[in-house]
Amino acid sequence: MKIVSSILPPEELREEVIRDFPEGDFLFFDGIEAAGESFYNDAEVFITYGEDLTEEDIHKATKLKWIMVMSAGMDEMPLKACKEKGILITNARGIHKIPMAEFALGTMLGHVKQRALLAENEKAEVWNRNLPMEELHGKTLLIIGVGAIGGEIARLGKCFGMKVAGVNRSGRENMWTDRIFPLSQLTGILPEADFIVSVLPSTPETKHLLKEKHFAAMKSSAVFMNIGRGDLVEGKVLLSALEKHQISHAYLDVFENEPLPEGHPFWSMENVTVTPHLSSRTKNYLPRSFEIFKHNLHTYIKNNKDYMNAIDFERGY
Amino acid sequence: MKIVSSILPPEELREEVIRDFPEGDFLFFDGIEAAGESFYNDAEVFITYGEDLTEEDIHKATKLKWIMVMSAGMDEMPLKACKEKGILITNARGIHKIPMAEFALGTMLGHVKQRALLAENEKAEVWNRNLPMEELHGKTLLIIGVGAIGGEIARLGKCFGMKVAGVNRSGRENMWTDRIFPLSQLTGILPEADFIVSVLPSTPETKHLLKEKHFAAMKSSAVFMNIGRGDLVEGKVLLSALEKHQISHAYLDVFENEPLPEGHPFWSMENVTVTPHLSSRTKNYLPRSFEIFKHNLHTYIKNNKDYMNAIDFERGY
Repeated sequence: MKIVSSILPPEELREEVIRDFPEGDFLFFDGIEAAGESFYNDAEVFITYGEDLTEEDIHKATKLKWIMVMSAGMDEMPLKACKEKGILITNARGIHKIPMAEFALGTMLGHVKQRALLAENEKAEVWNRNLPMEELHGKTLLIIGVGAIGGEIARLGKCFGMKVAGVNRSGRENMWTDRIFPLSQLTGILPEADFIVSVLPSTPETKHLLKEKHFAAMKSSAVFMNIGRGDLVEGKVLLSALEKHQISHAYLDVFENEPLPEGHPFWSMENVTVTPHLSSRTKNYLPRSFEIFKHNLHTYIKNNKDYMNAIDFERGY
Repeated sequence: MKIVSSILPPEELREEVIRDFPEGDFLFFDGIEAAGESFYNDAEVFITYGEDLTEEDIHKATKLKWIMVMSAGMDEMPLKACKEKGILITNARGIHKIPMAEFALGTMLGHVKQRALLAENEKAEVWNRNLPMEELHGKTLLIIGVGAIGGEIARLGKCFGMKVAGVNRSGRENMWTDRIFPLSQLTGILPEADFIVSVLPSTPETKHLLKEKHFAAMKSSAVFMNIGRGDLVEGKVLLSALEKHQISHAYLDVFENEPLPEGHPFWSMENVTVTPHLSSRTKNYLPRSFEIFKHNLHTYIKNNKDYMNAIDFERGY
């Protein structure tokens, strides 16, 4: 069984998986181009970040049966072709929750603790204690897209004494939110929120979901954070809301077009903080995703259907 | 009963306390100079931040029986004179725990999430996703001085999946720390810590407690944060440890001499972040401390000894 990877993990991870699975014939490459014919002619199992496959690749990969995507984002995967060829896809959904929730809480704490002003004053060697220091405690956090990641953000929000509301597709309960609503009721809950954090994936349903009316419904003191996908809101809609100061600040980790081009107004706007789509990045990323891969490789070998994070082609995630 | 305050709180707080206590004759001033003779001749109760009283003031204040310090720091209070004159002191100990714990966690999250680098890149409009993003999860946090504030930092550390060790005077248990040690065992536990946070007050026992050997015992990757009092470590000892890169970074909110003078090396060192003694600052500060004052004023009027945060002159806090 040829297992081809377009991810070249550190040596210790490679050695571990090779040792644990003598059934596997592992080939690790740095990128799909480097894998080349090994991928097209031999790979039964393919390990990827999910950003390097085309429809054509899927059709050309004659022996491919299972793709392990070491990521949660499925938007660059040729799902239709995989479905047609009956290829199993599993992903690393769930491993993002710790780094992303830490990123979200760190961003919110940086906001209330005036970190940007403090850094300016430090640079100027100015001792100024009269900053409007606030707290997360008692504030209302609204999470748009409460699944594994949103639930972890909710849990941490509760640890900080926040009031946590959530929105998800179905309005199904989450143990960490105080209140949960279906997406259809989003506009009604927006006026209560001090922090609005979106972790929604990109699906036909979530694309351009946030409109002008949603920003108009937010508090002028509200903070909007997007660590899900950039196409949640059209760039021009978001830009206009920020130019009109309909909200206080936007923390944007994702954008309609990535990388965000140099010169884009978001880079320099006072009420926007730009980060380069890295909320889920962590040194623990590959070790955690290899744990899921190893579980699924056991499953694949035993053929016992006990896969973690198998993709449902109908839902698209 | 004349109640004199050198703190001028917002009108709504003043009106509330005046309404709740018709027995009190309240006089609010902006600073002790403004209070003047009202303090010396009339005040039975005095409300202060605890930074404006001299020994002489205490001896001159003929009717003074109780001082409510709207702070937790007692280092600028003329305790000896108060003890001699049998003046009750209560303080606002405990209200710092929420803002300080949020400040501490926000600082640690800013560190692991590379906020300084991200801000630099944003300024230069550089999209660089290859930053060494880390997590609090799984890291070891050592809290020096586990009382109300340290306990709250410990609780939040546990929420983030950190291993939390603590040190306090007695080694008495705290429900949020995994392990706790007496101060005498500090050196032995230091090599394990990824984050070392001191919230110790200034007492004869804690002054210059941290020596060269302590920094030598820390991991070179360790982060040291002081949000307690600046005299925990001599400036030159700390400077030397940082110049020698014995630790990775110091986040300093307190200093031997405050304000930290312009031109001090700490302001511009790459591995030091300076903030101007404001970890406990919060918009919720006065409302919370007035809750304690009101509780204690009920106690004072009923004379039922049920004071919150009465100062023990032997311990000094």
